[in-house]
Amino acid sequence: MNEIAFLNGAFLPLADARIHIEDRGFQFADGVYEVIACLGGTFLDMELHLERLYQSAGAIGISPPVSKRRLGELAQQLYLRNPHLQDATIYIQITRGITSRSHLPTASTRPTLVMTARRLELPDEAAFKRGLRAITMRDMRWQRCDIKSIALLPNVLGRMEARRKGAEEAFWVDDNGHILEGCSSNVFAVIGQTLVTHPQDHHVLGGITRHLCLKLAKQHGISVQERAWHPREAGLKECMVTSTSWILLPVRRIDERRLRAPGPVTQQLHALLMQHLSSLRRKKDRPA
Amino acid sequence: MNEIAFLNGAFLPLADARIHIEDRGFQFADGVYEVIACLGGTFLDMELHLERLYQSAGAIGISPPVSKRRLGELAQQLYLRNPHLQDATIYIQITRGITSRSHLPTASTRPTLVMTARRLELPDEAAFKRGLRAITMRDMRWQRCDIKSIALLPNVLGRMEARRKGAEEAFWVDDNGHILEGCSSNVFAVIGQTLVTHPQDHHVLGGITRHLCLKLAKQHGISVQERAWHPREAGLKECMVTSTSWILLPVRRIDERRLRAPGPVTQQLHALLMQHLSSLRRKKDRPA
Repeated sequence: MNEIAFLNGAFLPLADARIHIEDRGFQFADGVYEVIACLGGTFLDMELHLERLYQSAGAIGISPPVSKRRLGELAQQLYLRNPHLQDATIYIQITRGITSRSHLPTASTRPTLVMTARRLELPDEAAFKRGLRAITMRDMRWQRCDIKSIALLPNVLGRMEARRKGAEEAFWVDDNGHILEGCSSNVFAVIGQTLVTHPQDHHVLGGITRHLCLKLAKQHGISVQERAWHPREAGLKECMVTSTSWILLPVRRIDERRLRAPGPVTQQLHALLMQHLSSLRRKKDRPA
Repeated sequence: MNEIAFLNGAFLPLADARIHIEDRGFQFADGVYEVIACLGGTFLDMELHLERLYQSAGAIGISPPVSKRRLGELAQQLYLRNPHLQDATIYIQITRGITSRSHLPTASTRPTLVMTARRLELPDEAAFKRGLRAITMRDMRWQRCDIKSIALLPNVLGRMEARRKGAEEAFWVDDNGHILEGCSSNVFAVIGQTLVTHPQDHHVLGGITRHLCLKLAKQHGISVQERAWHPREAGLKECMVTSTSWILLPVRRIDERRLRAPGPVTQQLHALLMQHLSSLRRKKDRPA
């Protein structure tokens, strides 16, 4: 299997893809990223992901080295150069580039653009039925989680803590105990008959699957509220997470509290998402 | 000038020092670092820096690949392999190593160890007399700034904002407007006759020059308080920053407020630090 990556204008074997130790992505977490799913050649919401990537880059003052359109083409080329992949995630990272180590970048610093392609194993039916266990952790991340930056150390630590406690995801909670989001997922609750998720602010990434989920719910008559919610709130019946790689998974435990998983709203939303993905996949099937 | 770096067991030209793009330091800011000053062959507080590095690594669950003692030897070797350097900073970075991208590391991940050596230009008398201008910014960093992690993006953004406003440093302030520390420095105030600095907690790095400064102040009869302080506090007379590279510099402006710089306490502390460094330098002079 010859895995191919992309680095600063060139496609090359992943094993050979190296960056200088003074790249600011390595020394300062000075960069942003995206993960885009590609199902059998069909990129899911490519435009939304690229738009968010350029917004994240702009928010920290990085000018991506290529246009959005060109980057989309390069991502597609990367997928095609990895013919062992059927369903894949394309990981895109842009950093501010290389400087002799100093917090302040120089004006001439040229951004670094890296892409990798990996097999995407979407959760199967068994994984969906099994669901996830989550712990809650006091939010210790920086205050601009709406920017998809590579400063992910707290998210790594959250996941490690979850594993230590026999769980698969950690949910960040604010000072009032409200659930913000997971380490690599957005979180939804079903409270009474309403689908609830934290509003999109500086503490929550504007997840693309989150957005799709809200849209599909509204289209199909599910009542939706974007508001702060608490894991001990009366009427909490179901919980689920969304992300590019997980799509939508039920949560069967938050700390010690057990929840019905998958509950009926979770099942309905999951079915709607799957229908949506199937329709995209049918539109353009990759030749075997 | 043949600059030599160290990477995972080998000394090599800095220009050739590359790490894989899936190093977790590059994708997750999953690492820690130190900067140690070396004046003419004499490392300043090597033990304290290494101790802090191993504490930071331990706090995020990384086991450094070599012992503290061995790392100290390697740092000294790196200095000797860069004979163009007289005064230098040795930069040491340890990351969790390489994994196929996933928030959760695998148990077998081998940490990456990188070191670079750079010329250290200590501030001269003119720079000391000039002092720095600082802005204040609401703290947006993560909640464990006592860990010297490479997740430095907010610090980069703080410095960029300072430059935009004609200043050299940004001071992080908490919800009450108290000054915590700078982007790469600890901050001291002189209030009345007392030297004041924020207590060492999760929002402040335990700076080694900060520690030395407090020690010298106490030894020389300067009254010292570690407490929260406000830039508009009555009786604020002087302000100064400390760091490995700056040692001690006066602050002549915080936002719009002008301060006497260097004031008498700043001058006294600076003189004490300089005496201390000279005595270390005299102990072991590097042959020309």
